[in-house]
Amino acid sequence: MLGKFIVIEGLEGAGKSSVISAIVDFLRAKGLEVMTTREPGGTPMAEAIRDCVKHTWDETVTEQTELLLMYASRSQLVTNKILPALSNGTWVVGDRHDLSTVAYQGGGRGVALSSLSQLKQITLGEFSPDFTVYLDVSPATGLARARGRGELDRIELAGAAFFERVRNMYVSQIKGMPNACTIDAEQTMEKVHADALSALDDWLSE
Amino acid sequence: MLGKFIVIEGLEGAGKSSVISAIVDFLRAKGLEVMTTREPGGTPMAEAIRDCVKHTWDETVTEQTELLLMYASRSQLVTNKILPALSNGTWVVGDRHDLSTVAYQGGGRGVALSSLSQLKQITLGEFSPDFTVYLDVSPATGLARARGRGELDRIELAGAAFFERVRNMYVSQIKGMPNACTIDAEQTMEKVHADALSALDDWLSE
Repeated sequence: MLGKFIVIEGLEGAGKSSVISAIVDFLRAKGLEVMTTREPGGTPMAEAIRDCVKHTWDETVTEQTELLLMYASRSQLVTNKILPALSNGTWVVGDRHDLSTVAYQGGGRGVALSSLSQLKQITLGEFSPDFTVYLDVSPATGLARARGRGELDRIELAGAAFFERVRNMYVSQIKGMPNACTIDAEQTMEKVHADALSALDDWLSE
Repeated sequence: MLGKFIVIEGLEGAGKSSVISAIVDFLRAKGLEVMTTREPGGTPMAEAIRDCVKHTWDETVTEQTELLLMYASRSQLVTNKILPALSNGTWVVGDRHDLSTVAYQGGGRGVALSSLSQLKQITLGEFSPDFTVYLDVSPATGLARARGRGELDRIELAGAAFFERVRNMYVSQIKGMPNACTIDAEQTMEKVHADALSALDDWLSE
């Protein structure tokens, strides 16, 4: 039987890593083989591309470059890791996927959604996640948590208005998506985990 | 006065570097400021992207990844080097540009030309070279010269049929391009230089 691809999305500090651990434990307890991925990155070449994106360069990084590197990394990861795992029956739990690009580059940077859908089609064709968990958090809460971890890279330094646009795009996109849920990630971690696992369980029982 | 962007195109071993030197000398002798570029690469970030493309990875490099990295590098180079130089009155002589992507990824790898033109539009908009010099050489001659220099990277190891398709795409594209010339690069280096400079001079006198 084929594996399924479950993606966790949300702003920095939304609690993605911790929800991913909970979902992995939940799926393994059902006897499933589970692999995790993160984007950008996930293969040696994709990690090199991730380093390029995350590095603080002494030159303007164009919004086009950022976008193209995200898709280049995604192409390597989907082709070399995700598709082989799924066809092998392994479930894949992803820390970010295509929706992040729509939210950050489309919502945050203002890249036209038509350009994004052309790039998605060129890079991934019809491939998409089986289920998406969106952890909704305000930029104020998310960035405070990320700052608390001492993790602020080039993209995370983009400012509050940027993250407000990213969140708005997440919210508007998730409304139109089948097989997706929104979790209130301002709640306690215990409540966020419980809500995410309950939504996942509902989807699995469909 | 704005500078002009002149691009030299052709297979490995076509003699691009040597023709570029001749063109740079020719333009400088007219009192012009001249800068050279190479693609992929040309800015610190674009060179890091070039390293990613040229590296021999222990994983499949998808045709999409190769393509997206070429355009990412090009976006950095055009935005941070070429456009500022041109607006400053400096002439730019480029070792490869967009036509290489059409020839190698379109002709060689078989990526749909419609995908390439979407990527070009997303990345560069209407930007294009003012004049293109295509050095036409057979794969047999070109690869023998490249091998003689001990320079064969991942792309250059793709095989003779690949380079035949690249050359055919160069030839068919150049026919439809305004402000472009084809030079028979099987000739002696002296004759190739003379033909290229004469074609450039004709264009400059228009």
